[in-house]
Amino acid sequence: MGLIDDANREAVERLDLSNPALTDVVFAKDVVPGIDKYTVSHAGPPITWNAMSGPMRSAVMGALIYEGLAETREEAAQLAASGKIKFRPNHDCGCVGPMAGVTTYSMPLCEVTNLTYGNKCYIAFNESDIRALCFGSADPVVIPRLHWFEEVLGPAVKDALAVNGPINLKAIVTKALTQGEELHNRIAAGSALFYKAISPALVKVVDSRTELQEIVDFLAPSDYVFLNLGMAYGKASADAIKNIPYCTVVSTMSRNGTNFGIKVSALGERWFEAPCPKVKGIYYPPYTEADANPDMGDSCITETVGLGGCAMGANPAMVHVFGAESTDEAAKITREMLEITCGVSKDKVIPNMNNQGIPLGIDIRKVVETEICPLINTGIAHKDPSHGQIGAGVSRAPLACFQQALEAFVESLG
Amino acid sequence: MGLIDDANREAVERLDLSNPALTDVVFAKDVVPGIDKYTVSHAGPPITWNAMSGPMRSAVMGALIYEGLAETREEAAQLAASGKIKFRPNHDCGCVGPMAGVTTYSMPLCEVTNLTYGNKCYIAFNESDIRALCFGSADPVVIPRLHWFEEVLGPAVKDALAVNGPINLKAIVTKALTQGEELHNRIAAGSALFYKAISPALVKVVDSRTELQEIVDFLAPSDYVFLNLGMAYGKASADAIKNIPYCTVVSTMSRNGTNFGIKVSALGERWFEAPCPKVKGIYYPPYTEADANPDMGDSCITETVGLGGCAMGANPAMVHVFGAESTDEAAKITREMLEITCGVSKDKVIPNMNNQGIPLGIDIRKVVETEICPLINTGIAHKDPSHGQIGAGVSRAPLACFQQALEAFVESLG
Repeated sequence: MGLIDDANREAVERLDLSNPALTDVVFAKDVVPGIDKYTVSHAGPPITWNAMSGPMRSAVMGALIYEGLAETREEAAQLAASGKIKFRPNHDCGCVGPMAGVTTYSMPLCEVTNLTYGNKCYIAFNESDIRALCFGSADPVVIPRLHWFEEVLGPAVKDALAVNGPINLKAIVTKALTQGEELHNRIAAGSALFYKAISPALVKVVDSRTELQEIVDFLAPSDYVFLNLGMAYGKASADAIKNIPYCTVVSTMSRNGTNFGIKVSALGERWFEAPCPKVKGIYYPPYTEADANPDMGDSCITETVGLGGCAMGANPAMVHVFGAESTDEAAKITREMLEITCGVSKDKVIPNMNNQGIPLGIDIRKVVETEICPLINTGIAHKDPSHGQIGAGVSRAPLACFQQALEAFVESLG
Repeated sequence: MGLIDDANREAVERLDLSNPALTDVVFAKDVVPGIDKYTVSHAGPPITWNAMSGPMRSAVMGALIYEGLAETREEAAQLAASGKIKFRPNHDCGCVGPMAGVTTYSMPLCEVTNLTYGNKCYIAFNESDIRALCFGSADPVVIPRLHWFEEVLGPAVKDALAVNGPINLKAIVTKALTQGEELHNRIAAGSALFYKAISPALVKVVDSRTELQEIVDFLAPSDYVFLNLGMAYGKASADAIKNIPYCTVVSTMSRNGTNFGIKVSALGERWFEAPCPKVKGIYYPPYTEADANPDMGDSCITETVGLGGCAMGANPAMVHVFGAESTDEAAKITREMLEITCGVSKDKVIPNMNNQGIPLGIDIRKVVETEICPLINTGIAHKDPSHGQIGAGVSRAPLACFQQALEAFVESLG
């Protein structure tokens, strides 16, 4: 097993040495390989229109309207079902996105560069609203906000980065972990740190006072704007462990709302899938568990790199979302995740766990052996189209994904 | 003892129900009773020029230069020693200030109103620099920054509050406690929350783009701007428990760099004093403990209302400043402070201590009986004039203050 252990150590080191920074804002059409107006990339493993859950379909409809390919949701649904739209996973084209995660041609995307290893990835701006395309909301605020991202926010952040230089996401993640955050369900401190970092440059570059006011009014109150940047931090870090021979560390976890998929370092781009789990959580009235879509989104790329559920110990304030009676449960979850990971971070630590490094490198062997599955923090979308976010909670990655991956790994050894 | 216990319960309730908000920015000359150009109010109990420590003297010299009463530090020292300057404690004229805490005629002050009880208090802006007047720094950046506060920052924040309405400091304190902060040694999240709250209104009201840029460049990177507002939160809360008959709860703790003084609710404005303790801490190279001034500043008004050392459990990331080997020491300190307090907060809680309410109402009887003295988080000034901040650490309020106060209380019962 020496080859595997060495490879996994290498993966842990690469995850820990990764240094993702927000380097630019670019348009999807300019950077996503093979994209055209009729391409919709989405969260999770590959899926057809027919197999999509309600909120995923709803988000696709909204995206097609945003792209000007349909005027009504009915038209959009017809187009989506017509076979003219090419659906593909974000993860297979350098992107990630929360919840439905739909990424299309005209969207401005944050470019995140892993300064240590040179790889780049892309993510749209967080909508900072339960009425969000990514949750499948059909609220009238959704599409105009996407156009405002394209016309105002995106170009402004691009110009701000040009005068400011890159914004170090690793530094923000590291500090937010000391500010009570695991960076998946709670990203208020991370969002504040990002706002503090970008706002002086925005004041410098945005000539229109009206636009500056709109931007500040959007970014300043947001407790979620860093969700997406944290995800891109995760993707940029996780992509640095792709294709390490003999490495049994998970390089991707993601769900499309129907199926949960993982990839494993040594096994490259192959998906291993199982049905999405249910989410245990709290619901915004009047919604209940009966309204909830199964787990959805690329956001568990944060767990893939030791944040979110893996770093739950950093966020004792939020254990109520999964019904824990004591905040000690938060640290217990991180200790549980340490049983299925290969190492810990040297610099990203959890102060209230005596500066425990976050768990790094989920090993499919350990998951299968212990049957401890990665715990994932997540938002909850309504199962029917058009509702938006209805709650937040936790789920467990399905064991079957890890079992299939381990079988395939064993086969690959020949 | 029923009368005392009832009075102390009343004090705890008032501390907890206090709702301080930043309501305005005003000039010291317009609000501080009896102030003139020749008045210098300072941190701690009353003190003469001759008895002042190096950094306190140094801050007074800077303030006299700022007020245009002297051109050089030598002239300022002569004026200070001449008997023409009236020195008096901030706490005796509605103010507080960190470290030397010098407050003078021309300074813009943040007005904080306790919305529950109607009382107001005042504090200057935090300088967010180790080269600060409050640390006695004679660096050339100090005086121009004070003029900029007077001419640019103060009027801008005043106008911003006018369009925005008051900023709720209790909400910021409550949230920062869940973001790893005890709000005395670590106030980065509090500072970020304040910046998020005020910046949209600043964009709205500051016409000059240059001034807006200066303001944002000052506030956005500051991890300390909320130190002063948190102190005013403390003062506004603590003033609401003044003069409750039979109440043995501490209403003020403060130090002038030479002596430590406390006041007790039932005993009104009487100071009980003992020499300032040394500070155990970490030092910025090349400084060492030998360079340190004794404990100084009004900032332990935060401990007086359950923050700072009382809420240390909320800030495990900073136990290294007092040499603790495990971050568990943070929660131990809060548990120790619970032994000398009369109650806990219902809404200001420490998540990683299973939502323990912060300790409220330091009881002089309990301090004397247990000999557990309030632990105070603090910055460290150089003992000689002109150096500025050289470190940060912790101290203990002197037992003698509490013993004297208890004797006086017993006497007052007749």
